[in-house]
Amino acid sequence: MSETATLSVGFIGLGIMGRSMAGHIQRAGHALHLYNRSRGGAEALVAAGATWHDSPGDVAAHSDIVITMVGFPADVEAVYLGSGGLVERATPGAVLVDMTTSSPELAQRIAAAAQARGVHALDAPVSGGEGGARDAKLSIMVGGSAEAFERAAPVLRLMGPSVVLQGGPGSGQHTKMCNQIVIASTMLGVCEGLAYAQRSGLDPQTVLSSITGGAAGSFLLANMGPRMLKDDFAAGFFTEHFIKDMGIALHEAERMKLDLPGLALARRLYNQLAAKGHGRDGTQVLFRHYQA
Amino acid sequence: MSETATLSVGFIGLGIMGRSMAGHIQRAGHALHLYNRSRGGAEALVAAGATWHDSPGDVAAHSDIVITMVGFPADVEAVYLGSGGLVERATPGAVLVDMTTSSPELAQRIAAAAQARGVHALDAPVSGGEGGARDAKLSIMVGGSAEAFERAAPVLRLMGPSVVLQGGPGSGQHTKMCNQIVIASTMLGVCEGLAYAQRSGLDPQTVLSSITGGAAGSFLLANMGPRMLKDDFAAGFFTEHFIKDMGIALHEAERMKLDLPGLALARRLYNQLAAKGHGRDGTQVLFRHYQA
Repeated sequence: MSETATLSVGFIGLGIMGRSMAGHIQRAGHALHLYNRSRGGAEALVAAGATWHDSPGDVAAHSDIVITMVGFPADVEAVYLGSGGLVERATPGAVLVDMTTSSPELAQRIAAAAQARGVHALDAPVSGGEGGARDAKLSIMVGGSAEAFERAAPVLRLMGPSVVLQGGPGSGQHTKMCNQIVIASTMLGVCEGLAYAQRSGLDPQTVLSSITGGAAGSFLLANMGPRMLKDDFAAGFFTEHFIKDMGIALHEAERMKLDLPGLALARRLYNQLAAKGHGRDGTQVLFRHYQA
Repeated sequence: MSETATLSVGFIGLGIMGRSMAGHIQRAGHALHLYNRSRGGAEALVAAGATWHDSPGDVAAHSDIVITMVGFPADVEAVYLGSGGLVERATPGAVLVDMTTSSPELAQRIAAAAQARGVHALDAPVSGGEGGARDAKLSIMVGGSAEAFERAAPVLRLMGPSVVLQGGPGSGQHTKMCNQIVIASTMLGVCEGLAYAQRSGLDPQTVLSSITGGAAGSFLLANMGPRMLKDDFAAGFFTEHFIKDMGIALHEAERMKLDLPGLALARRLYNQLAAKGHGRDGTQVLFRHYQA
């Protein structure tokens, strides 16, 4: 299977990110097979030649590689392990790739169930958000066997330049958890620093000009700081999805007997914001907590 | 006063950073007047032509601009406001520049006391650490009058390219507090993400390769992450100094009725580490908390 071979690629979950990601695969010349809970997300891709199916299992029956990008771990579990789902209906030797941010433990169960049927499974969550999906700039963190990775990697690279095998099943999800854990407390730092700037009567923009290039500098300070200061809380990444991710990470950390107080603090503050109706705001809405 | 005029510049506090900073001023051709608690730190500069004085006040009596880089706010207060100190002995029209990270409130008191004697005072703490001091790459955050800033800026620019007037007296210190507040929780995030990586059996270096370039990316993740993983806790910036800075920031936030739980958490963990003897380790030693 070379980089240039034409494959039948299934894609399940055509939200804002999934649609962009499937588009990159289609434009590379692969035959797309689609399923989504609502047909709307598939229209443009179908118009460009993709084949619609009425269930995830039907997609799997027609695909060499199946990619999923759905919402929550419960959705992943139903699509993969449910009756008539992907593991049951995948063709022998197919590679199933879950790009949803989901539970490492579930990824391991899926990989085991797939292996029992002669099917490969990878967990391959991404970072980079809507912009990364649109511009094929995602960072893709993969867990699974080297053999399955080799087969799926050429398709994954259509969605981003960084496609890294992190280890066995679940390792992609664990790596994504690391990413989200770092983000959670970094966001606390950005919000607290800028809240202090505002409260002490400084011009926060001028403060940013002094601190962004140094040891306090981060992607979030440079990119989310200015949005916070403009009261721009439009979602690049939904607060409610971040809360889901933090919940998975805290659950896994608990299993490992690892205490992560920064993450626990961030989750608590985000939960308070979601309770106030900010679940569909972007994660930079944490700044609101400090303006109350 | 042009950028090329030769000035008499006083420098008080010749620790590792102060020595480097004074050296840049000397090499630019200005006449240096020095005082330090121990004479050792001054030897190389004196050998290169600087003049030693036996007290901070004597330095002030011979200088157009006096720079201080001492340890704690109590040291700043003694040097500036003590009997025979800088404010009392400065020549009329001189500019006193405190580059110590210190209290905004103290900076305001010094500025007022200086003004009452016809002397200018600026607070101008830095970020960039030993490396920034050595390579003249400091970011310098200044509070005070525009007039005093204009007079001191050419000398400050010898120590770093970013010299920004942030507002009136105390604004430099407030800006430095913003910097430290952002760093405190960002460091939490870096430590927690890498601790999770280790505990979950991932290769943390491979994890860094997936997450450093994205939304989790920061100066600290890129620079301190690899040191943490090598158990390299040598000090670029001492934990005990960071604890001092966090204490000032929390005190100021309390005065402003601003609750900063991320900062409070970081200070608590750092205090525990200092109690275990890590005060002279670098701030990346926070990682140790998660390895206990």
